[in-house]
Amino acid sequence: MSLIVQKFGGSSVADAEGIKRVSARIAETRKAGHDVVVVVSAMGDTTDELIDLAESVSTVPAPREMDMLLTAGERISMALVAMAIRSLGISARSFTGSQAGMITDEKHGAARIVDVTPGRVREALDEGDVAIVAGFQGFNRATGDITTLGRGGSDTSAVALAAALNADVCEIYTDVDGIFTADPRVVKKAHKINRVTSEEMLELAANGAKVLYIRAVEFARRHGVTIHVRSSFNHNEGTIVYNPTEGQTVEEPIITGVAGDLSEAKIVVVGVPDVPGTAAKIFTIIANAGINIDMIVQNVSAAATGLTDISFTLPKTEGKKALAALDGAKAELSFADVVYDDEIGKLSVVGAGMRTNAGVSAQLFTALSDAGINIEMISTSEIRISVITSDADLTRAMQVVHTAFGLDSTEEAQVHGGTGR
Amino acid sequence: MSLIVQKFGGSSVADAEGIKRVSARIAETRKAGHDVVVVVSAMGDTTDELIDLAESVSTVPAPREMDMLLTAGERISMALVAMAIRSLGISARSFTGSQAGMITDEKHGAARIVDVTPGRVREALDEGDVAIVAGFQGFNRATGDITTLGRGGSDTSAVALAAALNADVCEIYTDVDGIFTADPRVVKKAHKINRVTSEEMLELAANGAKVLYIRAVEFARRHGVTIHVRSSFNHNEGTIVYNPTEGQTVEEPIITGVAGDLSEAKIVVVGVPDVPGTAAKIFTIIANAGINIDMIVQNVSAAATGLTDISFTLPKTEGKKALAALDGAKAELSFADVVYDDEIGKLSVVGAGMRTNAGVSAQLFTALSDAGINIEMISTSEIRISVITSDADLTRAMQVVHTAFGLDSTEEAQVHGGTGR
Repeated sequence: MSLIVQKFGGSSVADAEGIKRVSARIAETRKAGHDVVVVVSAMGDTTDELIDLAESVSTVPAPREMDMLLTAGERISMALVAMAIRSLGISARSFTGSQAGMITDEKHGAARIVDVTPGRVREALDEGDVAIVAGFQGFNRATGDITTLGRGGSDTSAVALAAALNADVCEIYTDVDGIFTADPRVVKKAHKINRVTSEEMLELAANGAKVLYIRAVEFARRHGVTIHVRSSFNHNEGTIVYNPTEGQTVEEPIITGVAGDLSEAKIVVVGVPDVPGTAAKIFTIIANAGINIDMIVQNVSAAATGLTDISFTLPKTEGKKALAALDGAKAELSFADVVYDDEIGKLSVVGAGMRTNAGVSAQLFTALSDAGINIEMISTSEIRISVITSDADLTRAMQVVHTAFGLDSTEEAQVHGGTGR
Repeated sequence: MSLIVQKFGGSSVADAEGIKRVSARIAETRKAGHDVVVVVSAMGDTTDELIDLAESVSTVPAPREMDMLLTAGERISMALVAMAIRSLGISARSFTGSQAGMITDEKHGAARIVDVTPGRVREALDEGDVAIVAGFQGFNRATGDITTLGRGGSDTSAVALAAALNADVCEIYTDVDGIFTADPRVVKKAHKINRVTSEEMLELAANGAKVLYIRAVEFARRHGVTIHVRSSFNHNEGTIVYNPTEGQTVEEPIITGVAGDLSEAKIVVVGVPDVPGTAAKIFTIIANAGINIDMIVQNVSAAATGLTDISFTLPKTEGKKALAALDGAKAELSFADVVYDDEIGKLSVVGAGMRTNAGVSAQLFTALSDAGINIEMISTSEIRISVITSDADLTRAMQVVHTAFGLDSTEEAQVHGGTGR
């Protein structure tokens, strides 16, 4: 008998039919003899509807009240799931985030989990009940107020509960079959990955793979939680995201997957003095504006002028803010110009086997060059290589790289539903 | 400076417009220098929609989960009201029933308030905030579970908070101008009552007046809370429901109001032995079936047979259950027949002045007799006389009695909106 945490997103519980389908699945797991903890999101569009309501009564809704409002969403879905399970003859009890002991800091709208004290959940399990827990929400002890975790919150709730309860696995149900070697809507011959380390998953998620949120993967990695990403529409095995134990010999494919990302823009600060401290100055200004940057490249200095260019990428949504910050510091930085380009795409190849295999970069650059695709920037980590191309080239780049690294499946991927969230 | 509790029902906060209108009213009270605690119900049809959802996933929804589900309703409205008030420049904070210290027993769906510990509400007031509290909901300490108070719950929440906070007045906002001498839709010349004792109000509410729930009035009476029933559509004074202090000389009109009720049915148990204990047996059987009865009349025994008839009234909704209970005890009771009649109406006249004024019954019976209206049963309390007529006669009976006791206004009542709830 195992202890299994199962997380169902808003699209899985969008209506009465979805709730009944999900509940049958939960009942099945329970009947197989497992202890089951379920984490649910709000039904379908509930959250968006509540946000619309808030904006219709207040131009800038107070964050504390916004959290109070939005947490009604999971309250509805969790109670309905508990009822539906009970009507299948399985005892079940629902718990709000605060009842389940999801203790957070007090940052409304984007709270961080600081502790999980799931005493009541454990008690319910001990009494033979399935415990249904509201995802996305928590409770701040100092203020006594309800909080929400922000984007990807329900995945994080599920992983945090799995860690606190020492669950055998945290199953994240979605409308795709698992994690793929590339987005199957872009690369038709992408195939499902059976196993991936949390380290690789982090790189994939951070570089455009949308099935799992980075926060949840980070939490799983830090706390040794095994995640199983799988479809709620069939019983196929999905993708296991695991944490190799120290010294464990793992069969590490050189390349696990290819990710694409169109959400970034590039800024080039042109003609800055090539002296120590210039880059530090620029990125201090950017950081002080609250902007997270991704890739950084500093060109070789043109010896004659003593000037250089510094390029970096950042979320498109932060573009304006960054330009304003740089503009405000023009005197201090003494640059010649700032060039902004939001027509870029980022391609990343990820694989833990890279560590011990030279030549991966060469193979990647050759594949792109053969396809006539220009590379504007390069950045690497131990297990990832990312390149910036034009946005128009990204899809083709993903396809040729997927083929070049031998990832192509012999059959086309089955895609259910929409975006995978 | 006073401490005022204001309660707004679901129809007042049915949409964004309603929420903004109500919030402006609350802000106005706060700006006048008062401390304000607001109790809100769920928006418009939210509760019905949630019940529909529950019934679509489960034929008999678990009561604990039903309470978890329904309490999402006030959570939404209270957060929206708090946001709307804040956007008017008035600081405000919302509290769930459990945050506001509404401690109840554990009877899901119909919980009783056992204690109110509004520490956080008091703190919010001390810090200058308007406190918005979810009506209808509470919290059971023993189980740690969320409960709901059942019908009339939000009125009761408001009165209970007013009592615990020692508020100066509990304002119950509705869509009529206050309590009327009779339902203005039935008696066109009904007029608003300015002041009524809680004792009279109890009799009116218990006998068909629908503006205030009995539970809330009972609570107000027991804890000395003054209620002000008024319209949320204008600034007119409504009706004050007050508790005369011991020995206080009150100007008591002989008749305060006339109430009509079409929700009851009559059962006559025909031909039971006219011996001590027969009535006790019948009503023990009815009570054991969980049925509350209202009026009881035992006819004079026909001396020749030694048999008598016993009649009583009960809610129509309990009719079937009562007939089945009597049928099951036919041998024990040895009655000849049971007659069921659900085409009855109950007319009640209420007035604290009755205590010291003889002749009220005679005046009532004369008025009805002059109008050719037959009386089937009579029951009286110290400050009320009720009679059963046919349902077809009830409206006319209310009109002639209203006139006979000099209650008619010179102008027709203004009726806003619908049912007064």
